[in-house]
Amino acid sequence: MDFAFDAKTEELRSRLLAFMEEHVHPAEPVFAEQLAEREDPWSSVPIVARLQAEARSRGLWNFFLPGEHGGGLTNLQYAPLAEITGRSPQLAPNALNCAAPDTGNMEVLAMFGTERQRQEWLRPLLDAEIRSAFAMTEPDVASSDARNIATRIERDGDSYVINGRKWYISGAMNPSCRILIVMGKTDPDAEPHRQQSMILVPRDTPGVRIKRGMRVFGYSDGDHGGHAEIVFDNVRVPAENLVGEEGGGFAIAQARLGPGRIHHCMRLIGMAERAIELMCRRAVERSAFGKPLARQGVIQDWIAESRVRVEQLRLLVLKTAWLMDTVGNQGAHTEIQSIKIATPSSVEWILDKAIQLHGAGGVSQDFPLAELWAAARMLRLADGPDEVHKRSLARRELSHYLPKEA
Amino acid sequence: MDFAFDAKTEELRSRLLAFMEEHVHPAEPVFAEQLAEREDPWSSVPIVARLQAEARSRGLWNFFLPGEHGGGLTNLQYAPLAEITGRSPQLAPNALNCAAPDTGNMEVLAMFGTERQRQEWLRPLLDAEIRSAFAMTEPDVASSDARNIATRIERDGDSYVINGRKWYISGAMNPSCRILIVMGKTDPDAEPHRQQSMILVPRDTPGVRIKRGMRVFGYSDGDHGGHAEIVFDNVRVPAENLVGEEGGGFAIAQARLGPGRIHHCMRLIGMAERAIELMCRRAVERSAFGKPLARQGVIQDWIAESRVRVEQLRLLVLKTAWLMDTVGNQGAHTEIQSIKIATPSSVEWILDKAIQLHGAGGVSQDFPLAELWAAARMLRLADGPDEVHKRSLARRELSHYLPKEA
Amino acid sequence: MDFAFDAKTEELRSRLLAFMEEHVHPAEPVFAEQLAEREDPWSSVPIVARLQAEARSRGLWNFFLPGEHGGGLTNLQYAPLAEITGRSPQLAPNALNCAAPDTGNMEVLAMFGTERQRQEWLRPLLDAEIRSAFAMTEPDVASSDARNIATRIERDGDSYVINGRKWYISGAMNPSCRILIVMGKTDPDAEPHRQQSMILVPRDTPGVRIKRGMRVFGYSDGDHGGHAEIVFDNVRVPAENLVGEEGGGFAIAQARLGPGRIHHCMRLIGMAERAIELMCRRAVERSAFGKPLARQGVIQDWIAESRVRVEQLRLLVLKTAWLMDTVGNQGAHTEIQSIKIATPSSVEWILDKAIQLHGAGGVSQDFPLAELWAAARMLRLADGPDEVHKRSLARRELSHYLPKEA
Amino acid sequence: MDFAFDAKTEELRSRLLAFMEEHVHPAEPVFAEQLAEREDPWSSVPIVARLQAEARSRGLWNFFLPGEHGGGLTNLQYAPLAEITGRSPQLAPNALNCAAPDTGNMEVLAMFGTERQRQEWLRPLLDAEIRSAFAMTEPDVASSDARNIATRIERDGDSYVINGRKWYISGAMNPSCRILIVMGKTDPDAEPHRQQSMILVPRDTPGVRIKRGMRVFGYSDGDHGGHAEIVFDNVRVPAENLVGEEGGGFAIAQARLGPGRIHHCMRLIGMAERAIELMCRRAVERSAFGKPLARQGVIQDWIAESRVRVEQLRLLVLKTAWLMDTVGNQGAHTEIQSIKIATPSSVEWILDKAIQLHGAGGVSQDFPLAELWAAARMLRLADGPDEVHKRSLARRELSHYLPKEA
Repeated sequence: MDFAFDAKTEELRSRLLAFMEEHVHPAEPVFAEQLAEREDPWSSVPIVARLQAEARSRGLWNFFLPGEHGGGLTNLQYAPLAEITGRSPQLAPNALNCAAPDTGNMEVLAMFGTERQRQEWLRPLLDAEIRSAFAMTEPDVASSDARNIATRIERDGDSYVINGRKWYISGAMNPSCRILIVMGKTDPDAEPHRQQSMILVPRDTPGVRIKRGMRVFGYSDGDHGGHAEIVFDNVRVPAENLVGEEGGGFAIAQARLGPGRIHHCMRLIGMAERAIELMCRRAVERSAFGKPLARQGVIQDWIAESRVRVEQLRLLVLKTAWLMDTVGNQGAHTEIQSIKIATPSSVEWILDKAIQLHGAGGVSQDFPLAELWAAARMLRLADGPDEVHKRSLARRELSHYLPKEA
Repeated sequence: MDFAFDAKTEELRSRLLAFMEEHVHPAEPVFAEQLAEREDPWSSVPIVARLQAEARSRGLWNFFLPGEHGGGLTNLQYAPLAEITGRSPQLAPNALNCAAPDTGNMEVLAMFGTERQRQEWLRPLLDAEIRSAFAMTEPDVASSDARNIATRIERDGDSYVINGRKWYISGAMNPSCRILIVMGKTDPDAEPHRQQSMILVPRDTPGVRIKRGMRVFGYSDGDHGGHAEIVFDNVRVPAENLVGEEGGGFAIAQARLGPGRIHHCMRLIGMAERAIELMCRRAVERSAFGKPLARQGVIQDWIAESRVRVEQLRLLVLKTAWLMDTVGNQGAHTEIQSIKIATPSSVEWILDKAIQLHGAGGVSQDFPLAELWAAARMLRLADGPDEVHKRSLARRELSHYLPKEA
Repeated sequence: MDFAFDAKTEELRSRLLAFMEEHVHPAEPVFAEQLAEREDPWSSVPIVARLQAEARSRGLWNFFLPGEHGGGLTNLQYAPLAEITGRSPQLAPNALNCAAPDTGNMEVLAMFGTERQRQEWLRPLLDAEIRSAFAMTEPDVASSDARNIATRIERDGDSYVINGRKWYISGAMNPSCRILIVMGKTDPDAEPHRQQSMILVPRDTPGVRIKRGMRVFGYSDGDHGGHAEIVFDNVRVPAENLVGEEGGGFAIAQARLGPGRIHHCMRLIGMAERAIELMCRRAVERSAFGKPLARQGVIQDWIAESRVRVEQLRLLVLKTAWLMDTVGNQGAHTEIQSIKIATPSSVEWILDKAIQLHGAGGVSQDFPLAELWAAARMLRLADGPDEVHKRSLARRELSHYLPKEA
Repeated sequence: MDFAFDAKTEELRSRLLAFMEEHVHPAEPVFAEQLAEREDPWSSVPIVARLQAEARSRGLWNFFLPGEHGGGLTNLQYAPLAEITGRSPQLAPNALNCAAPDTGNMEVLAMFGTERQRQEWLRPLLDAEIRSAFAMTEPDVASSDARNIATRIERDGDSYVINGRKWYISGAMNPSCRILIVMGKTDPDAEPHRQQSMILVPRDTPGVRIKRGMRVFGYSDGDHGGHAEIVFDNVRVPAENLVGEEGGGFAIAQARLGPGRIHHCMRLIGMAERAIELMCRRAVERSAFGKPLARQGVIQDWIAESRVRVEQLRLLVLKTAWLMDTVGNQGAHTEIQSIKIATPSSVEWILDKAIQLHGAGGVSQDFPLAELWAAARMLRLADGPDEVHKRSLARRELSHYLPKEA
């Protein structure tokens, strides 16, 4: 057992920290300005492309993807880098081409795509020439139980025809978003986990109607293409657009969600570190009732509790990454659930305290805290609400004590 | 001791409930549509005036204000009515001309205004012809300690000249907002609680610059005039615009905040009831993992816990109202602090659970929950953060045990 | 609505407070000494009888029992008196003959007993000449679901024969305990709520074997007769010992538990007040890190939070008492559940903070805090664990939203 | 970074698990019986010595002590072994001669003792021939601030004379306890952290008076010698009994407490695992309201939450052990505080849920849960209350943001 990062990780951390210091943090006010000035409320802004060029020239690119197509890192090596990008979550993950939902989509294409699908969609995604979306959640059902998904994907000759309604499809309104990976039912009569398939739908396919942008606590998240409600009305795509095999949708979703969840958790830890830093800075600068906030007991309590929580979360995330590397995503299933349960809620708690310490500033647009909070809060719901993961984890734990059947 | 409402309250409750049923709730979708269509993002919309006319014709008007100018109700009579309006907090309080911050401003004018000030500003406010704002919070200091307030109000001949910066001045961008009550320092050398004064500043006075709208977790609250950042740059008003006496600002603020806090708490309880109702409706309608959410243990736990909390909060608010009626606002000081500590955080908890139960819908614009949550969260900060009230309440409790001084 | 106590309550509160001041609190150290010196670890000590004589002579007697047999008080009048006795829970309830489990047993006899049963057992209980126990909980089943109860009560000629095992039968080892009210199954084939009956079993009946005293977090509660495990081995009693009718056991239990629960909650509030008082005293007396604990922010936070919680709990308990008086125990069912859910856990929280503030003293025998904590903790389980009450309360709340059946 | 145990740890874990399975767990009921039968309520029982002999013959001995005198393990190697002993905390640590307070005392003697002191006291302690106690906490002051300690140690010729009062001196009433390490003030005029010294006081020295056993939530912990209140009344010992140098007491206490705290945390994690195991067993065995507890949502929630918390705690403890090995106890200061803050309170939470799941059994002597709970609760106070550690940790975190002084 050894808690030190390996040499490669240390080296990349240094380079990434330098990039954050020299480019990302200075770009934050520029980003805010460009956002305010753009005309299309869902478009990216120029500073992002500039940061991407700089990052790529420094070899800080596609870290998230293991294997030949990506940065060649293990999950354990990527984790502390992803954490660092979480300190500036609107800019840094994008700058390194490590931003959701594209990361998960690239993984799907790398793992399950045909050569042709990879050529057409994976290549430009790896080069950040286009963006993508993942269309799973539906407004009318409890999508946390994938068996509820109602969108239909029906075979019709050499095509599939898609009908249904999705929402909270992140990034789909970004003008650069060209491709949607859509999950739907191909066979309602198959056994529950073989009913769904995934299919590639170019965003400009007739019948794809982007209805509106959904909000998250008032935020539209327009800078990364918002969260779209999309209606699929007799959308027809070639049969070859299917990803993997018919009935394989549930398995692909599971394969995609494991890494997706850990990446979110890594970044959340970076967000928590940012919150602690802002808390400390504010506490030493402001005074009330005759002494700096930093010397008030309740505030010290928040800071200590935040530090203790973050240290625990980080270790659990790192161990999970290590397990994914050594025994595979399936072997790390329980740990992936554990970090999904623990991280958003703990980081939300920390952000809440940081907000409280900042007074009205904390809920405002002048500090990143309220928007980070909304992101953390959303992750208690996204990719399955906490309660679903807890239920599943408990059943696994309890299964060890059930009488063995004959 | 008697826990039944008196006859007048029961009668008004019936009439108000009928008004809610017949007019307010049906107006909610109209309101949303009109908001989306208006051009000025800070303006009111026509449906509000229509509701006001209807409410006034039904005698549901100015309930918040005791005495001759208002509805003639006690705090204890008003409390359950305010709770009902909290079930539709964007429409109902406005419809009855019982919305913050105007209510507090009208109280200040009724209690401390000169005849001329009352004639000029209180009368049109009571008739909902104009709106008003209360400018106290500042971005650069911990305003929860009023002694920190830095805006200057300086006597210059027959005028006062105001310089400073305020933010989160609710309603100030509403085109109907005509008058600001501004708190600032008239005498930095006086003893701490006699340094501040309050002064009336017509919004169109030269030097008053509305800089921008502040956000609350992404929400601009444009429907009630937003939360403005305002710069006062050599703003000159006649000396007769002073409210009360020089050095009386702190005392007026205290007098204003007591009722303001209890009104917020009353409405929060209505918001909590709305949340419980939405939770129950959703729980019986949605299924996951083979049974309705209503039969899942964790969700039952949330609903029970919510009910138990709301019942406790309501009683504490009602008792506080009774104390204000019987021993005065000063005598009810500890209880006002208690409800300010207990209500926003408990209601926030309930709203969080309601959001979680609604999945992505919960954080969206399709349900009122996320926006209500932001309002509750803001109230853990507004009018003094929880921590300041707890500190003060504890010191009072502890004072009974301190050795008596000779 | 009126939050003032009536004149009778005020008068009795004054007299009871005087009795506490003059007799009960001074008796606490004497009680501790006599406990340490007695030989039978389950017996009462002389100071208790002396306090009872004094209380009775002052007309402070049997307040808990409404109607002709008791003190003639309403629940609402009794509640604030019971709270006061909770400040010294080992002595004061006993002193006034208002201690569990005798109170509930007397209620059962008053409501359901035959004239003969009342003559034989109720009269000496009302005079504190004997004590009693209530035997319901069983070690081998989840007794919170009364249908699980396994003890058998079988008719055999003019007798009933009882077989089974009970535990946590409070007071049963007190040498003064003469009578047990035993709940068991008379008809396993009846519908679920008609299977149980209650029967009177004199403690010296052959076949009644007191096996051992059960502990509550290390405490034996020997001063009030402990918590016995009792084996009933072919225990035969006359058929006339049945309380009420065959199959009426569940209904009697329900009738008994309502008042029992509210009495516990009333006393818990008194315990919480005692804890706050001890917290404040300690906080002003002790210093650490250069200032009194009373000036440390975290401790102020505990005290404020405690005060705010107690005020809410008290009002909910009082309202519940008022409902029981005005609409009956059945009409107050939801509120009785609410206080049972809210009070033990909140008071446990307050006691935990009081303990923490006292350091090692807090967990010791030198302060009453740890023992009070154990009592509060036990009440999160006794008379049905919190979870069972929450489940039931939620189902009732949800029932309003279920589609009406045709 | 590597999360796998090294080969030596794995091998020792296997051997220790076998010992637990074959000897310790089977000894638990024997231990309970022997405790009930012994005459001296503070004495050890024969089964303990038998387990010690067996453990020693298997090479499972003195693991806690690094270096030549002990088992030759690193902290990181010892941690998972200590965790295993925590599953049977009354027997296993003792069996391996790894029980507090002797472990800390042996460390003090190994690090700071003279050759003669080591010969006289360390050798028999390492052989489990005698036991020892550590006398620091005092009833009359907030001992968490060591500067408050009031016991005097005064030089008088070739002797030191000790006067003072200590309490919660664990193990001191065990008849095998021969030696006390006493902390007191040698120089009240020195600077705050140089006022205290430590000195060896044989328990049979004239003037040492064991006054009584202190309780922890009703438990006397008699099986390991209780928690004594001790009066030192002109106790005279040779000057050579001083441990280390005069004024070195504070530094020795700090050196002792680091490892002591981590050992407690390791064992607490084992206690939490035991609780989870008991929870799961009970949940699959008991039914209420028509289905096994294991299928009730709230209980699944508890189990999942417990698992997630334990995993986080364990990793933080292991990382802390690794830091102590690699950068020293001083370098691991913040992490030692973190585990001291996080572990007792989280494990207390888990034990509380396990108790609730067991109903009345949970608070009783029939399951180890209530007693384990009391131990965990005590550790939120012992070796400094949580609040003191949080304050200190926060100050360190904040210090990075303070303006550098010139």
